[in-house]
Amino acid sequence: MGLNAANPDFTAFLTAKLPEGTIRQAEPRHLADPRGRWTGQAGPVALPRSVEEVALIVGACASASVGIVPWGGGTGLVGGQLLANGPLPLVLSLERMNRIRETYPEENMIVAEAGCTLQHVQQAAEGAGRLFPLTLASQGTCTIGGNLATNAGGVNVIRYGNARALCLGIEAVLGDGTIWRGLTRLRKDNAGYDLRDLMIGAEGTLGIITAAALVLHPKPARNAAALIAVPDPAAALTLLSIAQAQLPGMVSAFELISGVALDFLAETMPDIRQPFAAPPPWLVLVDLGLPDGLDAEQALIRLYETGAEKGLALDALLAQGEAQRAQFWALRENIPTANRRIGAVSSHDISLPLSEIPAFIPAAEKALAQFGPLRINCFGHLGDGNLHFNVFPPKGGHKDDHAGQRDAVKRLVHDMVAALGGSVAAEHGVGRFKTGDIARYADPGKLAAMRAVKAALDPMGILNPGAVLAP
Amino acid sequence: MGLNAANPDFTAFLTAKLPEGTIRQAEPRHLADPRGRWTGQAGPVALPRSVEEVALIVGACASASVGIVPWGGGTGLVGGQLLANGPLPLVLSLERMNRIRETYPEENMIVAEAGCTLQHVQQAAEGAGRLFPLTLASQGTCTIGGNLATNAGGVNVIRYGNARALCLGIEAVLGDGTIWRGLTRLRKDNAGYDLRDLMIGAEGTLGIITAAALVLHPKPARNAAALIAVPDPAAALTLLSIAQAQLPGMVSAFELISGVALDFLAETMPDIRQPFAAPPPWLVLVDLGLPDGLDAEQALIRLYETGAEKGLALDALLAQGEAQRAQFWALRENIPTANRRIGAVSSHDISLPLSEIPAFIPAAEKALAQFGPLRINCFGHLGDGNLHFNVFPPKGGHKDDHAGQRDAVKRLVHDMVAALGGSVAAEHGVGRFKTGDIARYADPGKLAAMRAVKAALDPMGILNPGAVLAP
Repeated sequence: MGLNAANPDFTAFLTAKLPEGTIRQAEPRHLADPRGRWTGQAGPVALPRSVEEVALIVGACASASVGIVPWGGGTGLVGGQLLANGPLPLVLSLERMNRIRETYPEENMIVAEAGCTLQHVQQAAEGAGRLFPLTLASQGTCTIGGNLATNAGGVNVIRYGNARALCLGIEAVLGDGTIWRGLTRLRKDNAGYDLRDLMIGAEGTLGIITAAALVLHPKPARNAAALIAVPDPAAALTLLSIAQAQLPGMVSAFELISGVALDFLAETMPDIRQPFAAPPPWLVLVDLGLPDGLDAEQALIRLYETGAEKGLALDALLAQGEAQRAQFWALRENIPTANRRIGAVSSHDISLPLSEIPAFIPAAEKALAQFGPLRINCFGHLGDGNLHFNVFPPKGGHKDDHAGQRDAVKRLVHDMVAALGGSVAAEHGVGRFKTGDIARYADPGKLAAMRAVKAALDPMGILNPGAVLAP
Repeated sequence: MGLNAANPDFTAFLTAKLPEGTIRQAEPRHLADPRGRWTGQAGPVALPRSVEEVALIVGACASASVGIVPWGGGTGLVGGQLLANGPLPLVLSLERMNRIRETYPEENMIVAEAGCTLQHVQQAAEGAGRLFPLTLASQGTCTIGGNLATNAGGVNVIRYGNARALCLGIEAVLGDGTIWRGLTRLRKDNAGYDLRDLMIGAEGTLGIITAAALVLHPKPARNAAALIAVPDPAAALTLLSIAQAQLPGMVSAFELISGVALDFLAETMPDIRQPFAAPPPWLVLVDLGLPDGLDAEQALIRLYETGAEKGLALDALLAQGEAQRAQFWALRENIPTANRRIGAVSSHDISLPLSEIPAFIPAAEKALAQFGPLRINCFGHLGDGNLHFNVFPPKGGHKDDHAGQRDAVKRLVHDMVAALGGSVAAEHGVGRFKTGDIARYADPGKLAAMRAVKAALDPMGILNPGAVLAP
């Protein structure tokens, strides 16, 4: 059951069926991997403007057994948005389906088309006096369709959940070109299987999400942030549980930052002001969203003092106003840039049961010592157990000199994570880069069920071929 | 592909494979419908004590094409737990898989076997200094396995979500007897399709959930409740949005109660003290869970005063301590008992987009007038848009005198709900009583995809045959 290439005949057939300009040659941005590892094959791209056009395109591809690679904002880090080899696919970009269809502030709800950038959705929510809490570094470029397809995470998951938790209903095109009109605005609906959550996170391999009914939240009356220096990740975790007990439901983010991250920032971006005079071994960025009646500064001081008494907090900086809060966040958000400038041997998007984290970090560092004096920058969303555990050359070294170690390093880290019941695809998804990991680490029963579901919903195998499940 | 009966040969075969006492004759409780509409067929019941025994049973049923009816606590209201006709099934009760396997207070996590009653899970959480927030009238009897199979709702969904939102991972037996060991303790995991959420709410038709990793929450520092008299449901909704803006994330429940409910309580349970001297047209029960530093009484007074100024609140009673809070809740929880004593012509478990509710209630009442002077008791979880819109005979009448109107009344209500984008199976599930509604109202694309998923994961059709999807 091999696929056919999206050859000139097929492209001409589709072109004739659709409004002018819908089928074009893919631009370089449609074929690029942000980390530059792979490049998609030059070929056609479809830019539909309605769900009906998407349905026509998918139906035609199903009839002709032509693969479809759905494309959101192109920011995915695991190669889910490009196909470097195999029969030439049709790239399906939803960039022209970029309208906010409806806003229901009184229902805390908004209906957005898949091609809206995340920032566009955030701004529309803001305009309605509400908050759409999904927050990612790439929010100006990534699209809500891609966020849902990958069940994106980001920094506010601890409070508001992943993308899946922010979606009430979806409109999608199924593998045979059928439209599922599922834009429900219901908070409770047990009328049948949860195909919404199945499509979300399936990375376009079970259907194409074309629009979504999204959950908005009330805006906190005020926000407040602190950088707290801590002796180690164990202390950070205990501090987190104190924060959640003192401020239940009000901790919007709780980010772990290693001392190595501060070194990397100093090395690659010397203009960034280091927060503490003496660099701490670790720090956390705590962000709170508080209701009327609670004093933000007092809440942070109380948290720090409780931590300091127990030896969990070494020092703290409270953001004085929004500008300094933004500065704290810029520190956090510049870490990936610094990492790229240093150049990683191997990056890992892992999650662990919370209580396994304190032992995992030193154990993994110790095990990696066999590869020489590599540097490890471990940072991320501690509250979600989600770490970016990235491995770098020694100071002055270059990643290319360690290319031969890459697979072994990755395998060692992933094996350790799997042994602790963790995930090696925590928030970035599986894409095409991690299908081998899924095949290796997934529960065999789940894997068989996944293959059965894929075969049932996409019998021709046209939807994002090779993503999530290797052929 | 018809199913075979669980005949004496098959029962003898299974009996020989399993520890003594595992296969028995079903007791009346295994065959009863709480509302007395249907009775299951007398036959065998399996009471396994481990997931391996469940796997053996399901595998044997798959080989012999014998249907399985999973049984939790038997409290389901839609006939999902009993099969009144067709080839005799094996009832599979998980009542002996009732251990709390692990508790991780520092991770806000607990692992419970499917046969634990909801109350057992709540108490285990309490013992760990945490809260398991799922709260239902039947919590002493229903099981967490049943709660997950039906994605149960209850009174705290507005704050903590449905059962699905409270589950991180499941252990389940798939349709061919394979065990899926998916008891992950991860908050972020995008390694493959979300089969967990697919199994949750599938009512045992796609797999048998045998254990679950459940989310615990910190306990609020204090709780507080008020009964607020309101002129109508529109006022109640506006008051809700004020409450959520003033107290984001702190409204644990927001229940709508009709004046008719108070009449029913007075009629059938005269010992219950009526809260207000002059019975209001509608009231809401607001329940708050607050952190340290916020004054509960002040918060409720502020909410009432804001509402009163705008004409949204007519009167209010603030619970003076836990005993009175429990009294307010008893008032709410006795409504279903009063309803049973009156005897309904037809009950409806519906949800609507929030902003459709104010117009729906009077419109449905008006449309139902064609059936004569029926009484309507509309109450429920307003914050979730989930109403129990139940229709009763006129005062002094008996439901049996209206049996002939039942189907037409139900059809009228369900048609109106569907036309507004609502659900006719909001929190009780589909079971066997509502499969016709799913066939009528579900999106055709979704329905086809549901059938494809069912065929893929249960090709023999042995898992809870006839539930959710009619054959």
